[in-house]
Amino acid sequence: MKALRIPEATVTRLSIYSRFLERLERRGITTVSSSEIAKGVGVSPAQVRKDLAYFGEFGTRGVGYNVKDLIHYILKILGLTRTWPVVLVGAGNLGTALCTYRGFRDRGFHIVGIFDNDLTKIGKRVQDLEVLPLERLPEVVEEHNVKIGIIAVPLSAVQDTADQLVACGIRALLTFGPVVVDVPEEVVVRNVDLAVKLEILTFNLVFKEIHSVL
Amino acid sequence: MKALRIPEATVTRLSIYSRFLERLERRGITTVSSSEIAKGVGVSPAQVRKDLAYFGEFGTRGVGYNVKDLIHYILKILGLTRTWPVVLVGAGNLGTALCTYRGFRDRGFHIVGIFDNDLTKIGKRVQDLEVLPLERLPEVVEEHNVKIGIIAVPLSAVQDTADQLVACGIRALLTFGPVVVDVPEEVVVRNVDLAVKLEILTFNLVFKEIHSVL
Repeated sequence: MKALRIPEATVTRLSIYSRFLERLERRGITTVSSSEIAKGVGVSPAQVRKDLAYFGEFGTRGVGYNVKDLIHYILKILGLTRTWPVVLVGAGNLGTALCTYRGFRDRGFHIVGIFDNDLTKIGKRVQDLEVLPLERLPEVVEEHNVKIGIIAVPLSAVQDTADQLVACGIRALLTFGPVVVDVPEEVVVRNVDLAVKLEILTFNLVFKEIHSVL
Repeated sequence: MKALRIPEATVTRLSIYSRFLERLERRGITTVSSSEIAKGVGVSPAQVRKDLAYFGEFGTRGVGYNVKDLIHYILKILGLTRTWPVVLVGAGNLGTALCTYRGFRDRGFHIVGIFDNDLTKIGKRVQDLEVLPLERLPEVVEEHNVKIGIIAVPLSAVQDTADQLVACGIRALLTFGPVVVDVPEEVVVRNVDLAVKLEILTFNLVFKEIHSVL
């Protein structure tokens, strides 16, 4: 049960480590040290060791980690040794962009339904999917046993959409933009606020400016 | 110069604290404790105190922080007491969605130009902007003194686009999807990989399943 208390920042880094390890694997590299992982992703070696230590003893002192085993272990921790069906609500520009986002399929996320309540969008094709009316949501969620929903609707409609997804049995939601949703305690929600990433850029720009003045 | 070594996770949290504080301010709340901030954003009170301590002594013991002052101070740290012009390359679904993303303007990011080299997109209007050919990039960057560029092009074109932006004087780049770009050391790059957020969801789903079995 120890692993239940893993900090979210560690989970995020594991996700990033696994991408780096997959690149090594594609280049035929079979072992890697924590320092090499650290350098590859831009964190300290101590951080890498600390993150991996949450899951017990990995690697051999002086030899490092077996790349293939470590990838497998991280993917298992992240729940990615299987594929995950996902439903997407909102067939506007964001929803359409998400449907074609290569990063999802690469990691085993398959969008099995895209929904909208806008009559001008229903019936449109996005990739290999047809935009369906929201009434069809319960049926698709049940058919594919979907647990994950992505909300790509205007901010004013996010809470209603979340309510509908939760009512269908969705247990994990991804939202976009400056919005907070109320959901039952057992539902996990994570938000992508793209402005936060831009603020990391401005922070760095401002510090560089200060730095060059001093 | 101490602040130059602020961990990026702290910068991210400051960005999130400021959003919470702005919600309090809109509700007319004038003082707040570190525990209240912690509860509002889902981190520990010790973490909030540690993050704010990077910037010296804030607040009054037993009284808490002045909401207005704290917002101003955080925005100053993040470089957000001014507006930032931004250029966006790629007028596909993602680029179009980003142009209409309310979270940017709310935080002072103004997209001043959207570019594409696809003849079917050039001349199209997105919000109040006309999609311009990439040749116009240097002129717009210079005119508005732009330092920040967002890359929303297909993965295969990301590196070329980054090179062009850097050549124009852009010093901070935001990229999307599973991609790594090579840029000169003085350029800051941050990447949004939306699948990482989905993996936090699956991690939580898997642990909830384990939890309910145990």
